[in-house]
Amino acid sequence: MGFMHHVAACNDHDASGFIPFAIENQPVGRVRPAFAGLLRSWPEIFSVTGQAVALNCRGSGLQERSALVAGVLEQLIAQGVLGQFHGERYAAVAEGGREPLLLIDRAMAPCFGIRAYGQHVNGFVRTGAGLKMWIGRRADDRRHFPGRLDNLAAGGLPYGLSLVENLAKECWEEAGIPAQLAHQATPVGAVTYHMDTETGFKPDTLFCYDLELPEEFVPRCMDGEVQSFYLWPVEQVMELVKHSSEFKLNCNLVIIDFLIRHGYIGPEDEEYLALLEALHPPMPPLPRHFL
Amino acid sequence: MGFMHHVAACNDHDASGFIPFAIENQPVGRVRPAFAGLLRSWPEIFSVTGQAVALNCRGSGLQERSALVAGVLEQLIAQGVLGQFHGERYAAVAEGGREPLLLIDRAMAPCFGIRAYGQHVNGFVRTGAGLKMWIGRRADDRRHFPGRLDNLAAGGLPYGLSLVENLAKECWEEAGIPAQLAHQATPVGAVTYHMDTETGFKPDTLFCYDLELPEEFVPRCMDGEVQSFYLWPVEQVMELVKHSSEFKLNCNLVIIDFLIRHGYIGPEDEEYLALLEALHPPMPPLPRHFL
Repeated sequence: MGFMHHVAACNDHDASGFIPFAIENQPVGRVRPAFAGLLRSWPEIFSVTGQAVALNCRGSGLQERSALVAGVLEQLIAQGVLGQFHGERYAAVAEGGREPLLLIDRAMAPCFGIRAYGQHVNGFVRTGAGLKMWIGRRADDRRHFPGRLDNLAAGGLPYGLSLVENLAKECWEEAGIPAQLAHQATPVGAVTYHMDTETGFKPDTLFCYDLELPEEFVPRCMDGEVQSFYLWPVEQVMELVKHSSEFKLNCNLVIIDFLIRHGYIGPEDEEYLALLEALHPPMPPLPRHFL
Repeated sequence: MGFMHHVAACNDHDASGFIPFAIENQPVGRVRPAFAGLLRSWPEIFSVTGQAVALNCRGSGLQERSALVAGVLEQLIAQGVLGQFHGERYAAVAEGGREPLLLIDRAMAPCFGIRAYGQHVNGFVRTGAGLKMWIGRRADDRRHFPGRLDNLAAGGLPYGLSLVENLAKECWEEAGIPAQLAHQATPVGAVTYHMDTETGFKPDTLFCYDLELPEEFVPRCMDGEVQSFYLWPVEQVMELVKHSSEFKLNCNLVIIDFLIRHGYIGPEDEEYLALLEALHPPMPPLPRHFL
């Protein structure tokens, strides 16, 4: 199977299957023509042509236009066309821009192809027997990737929380890591991918963190997202990533980046340079609201 | 000045100022039209048009064609058109390929726009006062970047040595690091850049290594390349990279990669994602002869 298989799976998309979505004449996402067709029912909110979708937002502020779009989505949910809201909102930002132009429930962000940002924590322990990683197994009742393996802590960056706040929140909720320990997590880079999902186009940028944990620390899930945790030798984690689909799709990329930075995947690997390139495709600037 | 300034400086080139150089109908490099004009004097060895240069190598093996090209370069050196040979050879490899098609003195590789590979070692010490980096100052008699700051050990990967052999060789020659210690260097990634130089086009891929050194280790230069070594707090190194041109140009990129991986440059830096992208542009596969 190999490492590149996962990077390719996360980047499996056909750009020609989408049309641009624009706000204030700036491209902020991509929409499936079929979904664009549904939006024609609200001509006062969306201008839909065969070539593009634009939000009609002359004079409307961020909160007002976000409420209008949420109203449309609620009607589509009521019609059974869309699934449920997640409850957290993502901000749509123009390509290359840093200011929020629209807030939208994160479950609906792929409908408009809006970029998501997340934070993933590699939790590891230096033991006498070598480096070990804490790995979680997602609860069986999760909407996404039930029962699959996951990073120790990981989550999307919702609008309204900074990088520092959200990291502490995710560390506590998913793994019971107290804030004092969470603040020791070191930012070590980021990976980006662009994926076709059932809901739509999902461009995703994940900030990666390494968190070295004391041997006596044992994670405990606070919010029901994880059913169990394992402390595995990094070699075992590497084999699982390389030869299985046990991990939630994007967690593979975060672990591959970890394995490269810690020398477990070395330049003698045929895919080494190709992996480095593929994990770091063109990336957006970080929106200001995360600072 | 900022970090991105250095990445941009290493990627400052105008692709339209070069024409392709091909061997066995495969693109392997780029040549300045003026240099291509000089090669017209050897029509039995080079086919030169206004659009491209091709090596005439029907039936000739690697050693034979390399000797023919070296003969041309020796005549151009004798005419005073080119500087001296370096004494080590690089291998020209087809774009996307992994087999050597031509061996050429490394000082002349940019004349043909042939990709170079190198290895750079970040030598660091964990002290009670935080992380410190060993930095070298290049001897004043060096041909390239005399008197400038440098990584603890660094060097080009010549044809005929593997990654492991060359790393040990550079560690010993430049910093007196014994092989046993050099083998503890951890591969942590690679950076790539494409630069216009006086000699020609220089695509360069540098494999980066982190080497944690014991506090009692003191580097000592064996080959005259370095005049002195400093053990500086990483914050001081970061300031020098950010606000000066004290470092040899490509060493800035290796240190920026180090600063990102160790959390000294974090996601709150406006250039964070742009730096990650710019350090990892499209990369070639590693030629087989380095394994």
